[in-house]
Amino acid sequence: MNNHSEIFLGTAFSSRSPKEIAICKDYLFFINAEGVIERMVAPDHAEYQQLLRTCENAENFHRLADGQYILPGFIDLHVHAPQWAQSGTALDLPLYDWLHEYTFPLEAKYADLSFAKNVYEDLVGTLLANGTTTALYFATIHKEASMLLAEICAERGQRGLVGKVVADDTEQNPPYYRDADSKTALEDTEAFILAVKKLAKKVKQGVYPVVTPRFIPSCTDEVLKGLGELAAKHNTHIQSHCSESDWAHQHVLERCDKHDAFALHDFGLLSDKAIMAHCNFLDNEDAALFAETGTAISHCPLSNAYFANSVLPAARFKALGVDIGLGTDISAGGTASLYDNAKQAVASSRMLEDGVDPALPAERRGVPGSRITMNEAFYFATAGGGESLSLPIGRIEKNYAWDVQIVDTKVKNAKLPIFDSNEDLYDIFQKIMYNVRPENIRQVWVQGEKVHERN
Amino acid sequence: MNNHSEIFLGTAFSSRSPKEIAICKDYLFFINAEGVIERMVAPDHAEYQQLLRTCENAENFHRLADGQYILPGFIDLHVHAPQWAQSGTALDLPLYDWLHEYTFPLEAKYADLSFAKNVYEDLVGTLLANGTTTALYFATIHKEASMLLAEICAERGQRGLVGKVVADDTEQNPPYYRDADSKTALEDTEAFILAVKKLAKKVKQGVYPVVTPRFIPSCTDEVLKGLGELAAKHNTHIQSHCSESDWAHQHVLERCDKHDAFALHDFGLLSDKAIMAHCNFLDNEDAALFAETGTAISHCPLSNAYFANSVLPAARFKALGVDIGLGTDISAGGTASLYDNAKQAVASSRMLEDGVDPALPAERRGVPGSRITMNEAFYFATAGGGESLSLPIGRIEKNYAWDVQIVDTKVKNAKLPIFDSNEDLYDIFQKIMYNVRPENIRQVWVQGEKVHERN
Ligand SMILES: [Zn+2]
Ligand SMILES: [Zn+2]
Repeated sequence: MNNHSEIFLGTAFSSRSPKEIAICKDYLFFINAEGVIERMVAPDHAEYQQLLRTCENAENFHRLADGQYILPGFIDLHVHAPQWAQSGTALDLPLYDWLHEYTFPLEAKYADLSFAKNVYEDLVGTLLANGTTTALYFATIHKEASMLLAEICAERGQRGLVGKVVADDTEQNPPYYRDADSKTALEDTEAFILAVKKLAKKVKQGVYPVVTPRFIPSCTDEVLKGLGELAAKHNTHIQSHCSESDWAHQHVLERCDKHDAFALHDFGLLSDKAIMAHCNFLDNEDAALFAETGTAISHCPLSNAYFANSVLPAARFKALGVDIGLGTDISAGGTASLYDNAKQAVASSRMLEDGVDPALPAERRGVPGSRITMNEAFYFATAGGGESLSLPIGRIEKNYAWDVQIVDTKVKNAKLPIFDSNEDLYDIFQKIMYNVRPENIRQVWVQGEKVHERN
Repeated sequence: MNNHSEIFLGTAFSSRSPKEIAICKDYLFFINAEGVIERMVAPDHAEYQQLLRTCENAENFHRLADGQYILPGFIDLHVHAPQWAQSGTALDLPLYDWLHEYTFPLEAKYADLSFAKNVYEDLVGTLLANGTTTALYFATIHKEASMLLAEICAERGQRGLVGKVVADDTEQNPPYYRDADSKTALEDTEAFILAVKKLAKKVKQGVYPVVTPRFIPSCTDEVLKGLGELAAKHNTHIQSHCSESDWAHQHVLERCDKHDAFALHDFGLLSDKAIMAHCNFLDNEDAALFAETGTAISHCPLSNAYFANSVLPAARFKALGVDIGLGTDISAGGTASLYDNAKQAVASSRMLEDGVDPALPAERRGVPGSRITMNEAFYFATAGGGESLSLPIGRIEKNYAWDVQIVDTKVKNAKLPIFDSNEDLYDIFQKIMYNVRPENIRQVWVQGEKVHERN
């Protein structure tokens, strides 16, 4: 067994399809030196017993304890890393005040690298502790602090996709927090891309530069066009916000005479490696353009409750062939946990389906067919995130990275409500999704390396 | 200081009013032998320094560590204790299947007292670990198992209000899980009331019997009338479900030719000590009747997303003078935490205000004026719960019980995102409400006794 870097024996949950969970009960998982799942062997396989005998005393063999389960690490498709320092505050304010009184002044502070280091190290550690193995980050407009975030991801073993934020419009951004001008913004972005690509060469789990216009309203046409060109030239991921709220949607419609989706497409900002946050106000034509270009939606249901004036019609967009993943949208979402957002994705979809106003008759209250199940929310948090990023992550399957969280349902002080030693494994999966707290997440692995552990 | 059983020095958050938080920075709190707050002294009080010198070396003096804060213990106004064993499962099913495939068969198992003991001890411990110092419980139809729950609350130090559930209608309840007949249901209820009142005599924090018709559809007129009489005769609390969903609301309207509120009132089931779960479909006349009789709403926002077809118009009902508290509605809510429900109460109210369907124009999407703030959700979880139960709990104020949770924002592995040693205390309060996990809750006290601790 020396040709495998790690071998695990345990029960894993992974998506078989968007609506179905695969349960791999007591499988052997063989991880190769690249941190990739090379082989999975079920207990009824002819070689299972012999393989088990051969490896079970090896140092790299890990047998999960009773009550422990393996889940894919979560993929957070929308994190404003600098906003971690205000997570949970000011959510009762209107968007404009939230931005100008809290968010912009806070983001401006990341010119100070020691402040940045303090917050970013805490954030990356917190996300790992919440089971998030891959994160797609907005940093700030500062090239150096953005680079620092990529370095911290590299060092802590998280798969980080990091964008230096671009915001050059002089009307929409305060003077203390915007790019000097569009030329500088593009130069800084290209320098950042090259620096992250250089860093990536020595990082097992990968770090990735991301072209990151904050959103159309905060950017000039010139910078948006230039960013589209840079993304194409360097074949990078792209992220932005798209059709998030009534205000944003209308603003773009007035400025560009088209919806965000088509405007972004014209700027070269939709692609198989593009992920757009929110997207609540896409119409079906916009969604079809997303599906056609391979552009994904990062669905942030908690944030949407505060700032998007609506619920994302996730079931409809999924049926139209759009890739969807989940995002915390720190700090507009008020939590670092994708468990919280998976639960909210289900709850919000039920509220869209049934409607919210009890004063309306049932038949005029909601939008039938809108609900998603926890299986689908789990898919968004895992496999859907991997598809959105076009990376081999988010599934416990051969040729996927060994990015996992090992959950203990029996840990002292945080025991899950399981009282039947023969409880159905699918019920246990659901109990995990609804009841797990960070303290149940005992180990987190990324690309075959252990990056978080609690004893 | 020997006449005080405990003395605390620390910073506490409590409701000053439904919309405002009182911050007691570095106060001294003197707790008397009955576990009641006898005196609170602010640092600018003339005697503060002298009092501090006199007591700070006493054994009963507790100085909170840096980063620790005192919050009132939470008051959970709606818990189906037996359903803890299925928390998180089957939430994707329609209500009928959820009841008949999962819930009724599970509740029927509490005829077995050893099963009941196992689950109930775990539940009470879990609720305490989540900061819930008072809980209003539906047990099951079984008199003995319901009594066992009251005994476990008594022993673990939680303030438990417990109801033996009554469900005698032969059409709405399966033969394997209903009261034998209405006479037996009433006899069992009265015997249960007397037994809990007897138990209560030796319980410092109190245990209380609760008259508990499951809801109108599951009960005969005869039993409902009899329960109203028992509640009056023994001056007990009353709980039930009221106008929860389209189905339930319509069912009662057809059977009684009036809304649940007026039907319950006719049966003698509304009072200052009555708490009705959900109540989404109350109209303003129903709400006025609640206000007039002192009947409270237990608002269960997570459960509502699954089973209530709507969002409770909490702001409207509060403005009409109705007492409102929060409930987890284990297991329809999928969590044991009132923190989770406080967050959802805010998020759901925003979704009611703004609406959910992005295909509708903004002006026809939502219900303006519906939002509540986190301050109000916190009020519901604490002071509002106390008012709903008509008990002196839920506030950190003189003559209120010392029911508190001591939260540590700096605990290893669960540090809150606080990076400024001079951060505004109101921002810290908000960060606590959004980010606290059970592992941050280091101590829980009820009626002056420590009932939960983590080291
Ligand atoms: Zn965002
Ligand atoms: Zn209920």
